[in-house]
Formats: sequence, structure tokens, C-alpha cells
Amino acid sequence: MTDLILGADVGGTSIRVLVADADGRRLAYATAGGGNPLSHGAERAAAHFRAAVTEALAGLDARAVRAAVVGAAGADLSDGQPAAGTFGGILASSGVAARVELVGDAEIAFASATTNPDGTVLLAGTGATAARIRDRALDAISDGLGWLLGDHGSGYWLGREAVRAALAALDGAGRPTILADSVSRHLLATGYDAPPSRRRADIVATVLAGPPIALASLAPLVARAELAGDEVASLICDRAAGHLIESVGDIRDPGDTRPLVLSGGVVAPPTAPVGARVRTLAAARFAGEVMTATDPVAGAAWLAAGRAFQDLAEAQLDAVHRRLSTGS
Amino acid sequence: MTDLILGADVGGTSIRVLVADADGRRLAYATAGGGNPLSHGAERAAAHFRAAVTEALAGLDARAVRAAVVGAAGADLSDGQPAAGTFGGILASSGVAARVELVGDAEIAFASATTNPDGTVLLAGTGATAARIRDRALDAISDGLGWLLGDHGSGYWLGREAVRAALAALDGAGRPTILADSVSRHLLATGYDAPPSRRRADIVATVLAGPPIALASLAPLVARAELAGDEVASLICDRAAGHLIESVGDIRDPGDTRPLVLSGGVVAPPTAPVGARVRTLAAARFAGEVMTATDPVAGAAWLAAGRAFQDLAEAQLDAVHRRLSTGS
Repeated sequence: MTDLILGADVGGTSIRVLVADADGRRLAYATAGGGNPLSHGAERAAAHFRAAVTEALAGLDARAVRAAVVGAAGADLSDGQPAAGTFGGILASSGVAARVELVGDAEIAFASATTNPDGTVLLAGTGATAARIRDRALDAISDGLGWLLGDHGSGYWLGREAVRAALAALDGAGRPTILADSVSRHLLATGYDAPPSRRRADIVATVLAGPPIALASLAPLVARAELAGDEVASLICDRAAGHLIESVGDIRDPGDTRPLVLSGGVVAPPTAPVGARVRTLAAARFAGEVMTATDPVAGAAWLAAGRAFQDLAEAQLDAVHRRLSTGS
Repeated sequence: MTDLILGADVGGTSIRVLVADADGRRLAYATAGGGNPLSHGAERAAAHFRAAVTEALAGLDARAVRAAVVGAAGADLSDGQPAAGTFGGILASSGVAARVELVGDAEIAFASATTNPDGTVLLAGTGATAARIRDRALDAISDGLGWLLGDHGSGYWLGREAVRAALAALDGAGRPTILADSVSRHLLATGYDAPPSRRRADIVATVLAGPPIALASLAPLVARAELAGDEVASLICDRAAGHLIESVGDIRDPGDTRPLVLSGGVVAPPTAPVGARVRTLAAARFAGEVMTATDPVAGAAWLAAGRAFQDLAEAQLDAVHRRLSTGS
């Protein structure tokens, strides 16, 4: 029976589960729908998690799993209490007898990029959190307050600012921007050509009728407009990067030489305009290497490997990390 | 049979209905719970409106109502379509045979302060809207986008900033403020003395569990802290006033000499710290008198009088206005 490790990444828009052997070779990788208990409801999150776990363990011996690490947004907020039982219970009922550890999304994102036990991670996807990592665990946090109270510079924030810029342009109070048209097309029926005041009212009504977090789906419009040279979109990207760097600055000393890891769709992709600005600002303000997270679920699996095989030498842990994060 | 006029103010937190005679003498005044169809649901708003209308018309001859004006937040957004039928239908079923006109909350707030047909009104209560009034009707608007997309400087915004300032102080990332304690006491159980990180998490969870608009209930904490000399609260008030003046500036020329009317709990009360800042900034930036709205329902009733009795001389309209707005 081959020893196995299991990592899970329970994100707001998707759940990923990775099962690997003791050397870090990927044996199974499953995905399911969103799983944040805060934004999706505990029952739906549990159902998605169960589906991903079942798929990942199909054809494998669940009893061979030596350690499981589940990274979930909000785990830090809830002190690990409410969700731990749910995720742990689902794994147990799937045959996993090993200890299940629940950690925050920050820890697994950081661990996906580096084997360094200390540093800082900036997560900017639907939400935005900066976290200080010490000994591979969360030590301090800035923002990560959710769309209502914070998440400044996040995908949600970008989407909301796109709508605000579009409304201001339609008002005539703001500068012209191609966001006025792209936001209208995204939110309203195709081919919509009502007068600006009517479009403004319809955009507001459409946004208010949906869940607020759906504004995150408009974030790509900002990146697209920025790439097309739109100055209003460029300014929104500047402000987003400023917010994100400010959050990092809250919990990172300028002289800190440990890694700063960028994770999430707003900052990690090489073409992301906010990510490019964050890299420039980070290079000017902080010491230490700026790294990009790979797949956070690989970080979760690697943390599980560290738990399961505590006698592994550093070089072995590095090799496991490389295999898990490159998938080879 | 004495001719009657009816005014209604359908606000987010309360509905007011005023019935007066042709000279502006108040005959009945009724209040009911919140009535904004967007935030309270159409059915509940209709039930509250019906209760207030029924109470106001008790003992009066509804058929003697010569005109009715209903001011409702959001009437401008919906072009008067969805809510008009509802409010008009309820008045008709209460025996009011006269024409019912639906206008925005801006028009009635402006008309409560002045008989001038033109000017600007800044509404800052739970929400925040700046509106240009021409010929007693809405001509242009800035902000008024609701809590999700705007309402910068509103009671909602102040409450949210109070929570953010409290969280930042509990984090250690922000400056110390008495809001850390007053927000904790407001949101959490009395006598709560958990460590800061636990309080931070509990505050976030409590806010996310409630309706976002409930943050407006925290706005008075900012005013109280400002009066106690708290610098963080003072800065929040500065920023609120800046946002509100910016919204006014979007739709008012600096040289405009017509009245600027302040309405709503954030700016109208003489002791309101945001209102004091708005007055100072307005005096520096705009020409024209800064006036304070009286009860907006008096503005609605006065607009109804103008509709009902179109042969009234200006002096008579002034007298009716004075009686309606002072209640004497």
C-alpha cells in the first residue's frame, strides 16, 4: 500500500483536491464548484467538497492517506472551528483515517510558491488578503474583511469600480471610458442602446438585484480596458495596486528579506495589469524576492507531506515540493 | 367640504403622510415603518404605506383630497414606473380620487426648505444623493447609487467606516480610536472583553451575518466619538463631508446663486459633525444660500398644493409653505 497525501483548496469559486504519493507525484486531481461557507452556505460548500473528494479518491485507497491539509478562505476568521468538523467529517466518511488539518487559504498559497517557512503572501482573487506567515502558519493578517467591509483591490473591488466608472461616464460627471460600453454590454441585454440616463438606472437596478459578490465577474473588463489603453481603467488598476500594497505594508517590514508571494487571478497571471503594478511597487518598497504562487492545492498537499513524513530531509521536501507544484 | 392636500414621504426607515387644508394647516400626520421598495421589498413597503395613509385619512373625507404627491427614494431610478401604481393604487383604494404624483425624495426635501423652483439639494441620511432641481423637478443627480455602489458620505458609509476603523485599531495596523470599543459594544454582547484578534473576527462575522444596510445604525457612534475629540472619527467626518461636497460639485456650478438645501440626519441637524463640515466647505466652494430642509413630507404636501390650486398667488403659496413646514 503506497502512502498518500491529500491537499484541498476550498476557494470561493472552486474547490480543488489533490492526492499524491509520498514523493509528490500527482495521482489524482479533482475540482468542484465554490466552497466558501461564508458566501455559498455551509451545505452547498459541503456538497461540493464531498464531490471533489469522492472524485479524487476514486480508485485509490483512502486508508493510505497519511495526512490531509484543507486550506479554506475564512478559516482564520473562524479560528478553524465551524468548517473543520464539516471538511474533516466528509474526509472521514470517505475513508480517510488520517488527521485532517484546516488552515487558511494564505498558508497554502504561500506554501505553493516556496518551501521557506516565513514570509508574506498577498492573495487577490475575488477577495483580497495580505498575510504574514511564520513557521508555515498564519501570524498576522491585513484586510481579508470580505466584500462588505474590505477586500480593497480585489476582483470584487475591481468589478465594483468598473461599474462606478461606467455610471460616472454615463452621468457625464466622470471621464469617458470604454467601461461605459463594456459594463453595459456585460450587465444588460446585448445590443442595448437606450439613452445614458436609462442605461445608468438599468445598470444600478441590475447590480442591486444580484448578489454583491457577482460584481467580481466584471473584473476582467477592467484588465481588458487597461490593455486597450483606457485611462480610467488604468487609474482603477493603479488604485487597486495601491490598496494591495498598503495591505502588505500593514504586516511586512520594509527590510524583511523573506519571500513575498503573489496569489490569485488579480495579481498572479503574468498579463494581469494589477499584478504588474504590484510587482513594480513591491520592488520599490520591500526587500526580498517577489514570487508567484503556483496552484494553492499543491501547497496544501505539500504541507500535508510535511505533517505525514516528519523525518524527510530538507532536500527531499524540496523535491516533493517541486513535483507537487509543477505536476511532474 | 374642505379641500384637502396630501403629501407622503416614503423613506427607507419610515413613511410619513401629511394631510392639510388648502391654507396649509396640518389636519393629520401619520408615520409607519420603512418603505423603500428596493431595501424593504415591495409588499412590506406597500403595507406600511397603506397603514400610514389609513391613519392619516381617519376622520377625514378622502374624496376631498384635491392632489397627492408621494416622494420616494428611488423614484428617479425607476422612472416612476414600478412604485407609482402601488402607491397610487393604495391611495385610490383609500378613497382618494385626485391625481397622485410620484416624485423623488430629492424634490420633496428641496421643496420643504424653499419655494424657489430651482437649486440643489443634498440628501444624506441612510443613503446619499445630490440632485439639481429645475422648476421643482429633478434635473440631474450625482451618487444616490445605493450602499453597494455608492452613497459615499451617507449614514451607511459612516457606519461602515466606523467598523473599518475599529477593525484597524484592533489589528494594530490603524490608529487607536474609541470606535474600537464603541463598535465592539454596539455589535457584540455587552461586557465583551475577548482579546483583540477574537473581537476582530467576531465583529466581521456579526456584520456579515446581518443586512449590509444595518451598518447605518453605527453612524451615530462616529458623531459621538467626534464630539469626544477622537481624531480617527474626526477624519471619517472630514472624508464624509468631502465625498458629499464632491457629489454636489458634480451637478452644481460654483457660481450658481440658487439655494443649496441640506436634508437628512447626516447633514441637517445643527449638531451633526458632518453637516458642520459640509456647511464650511459649501460656503467656500459655492455661491448661494445654504438652507436646511424641514420635514420633507411638508415639501410633498406643498407640491400637492401647487398642483391642486394652480391659481394661487405667490404670496399665498409662500403662506401655505410656511404653515406646512412649521406646522402652525
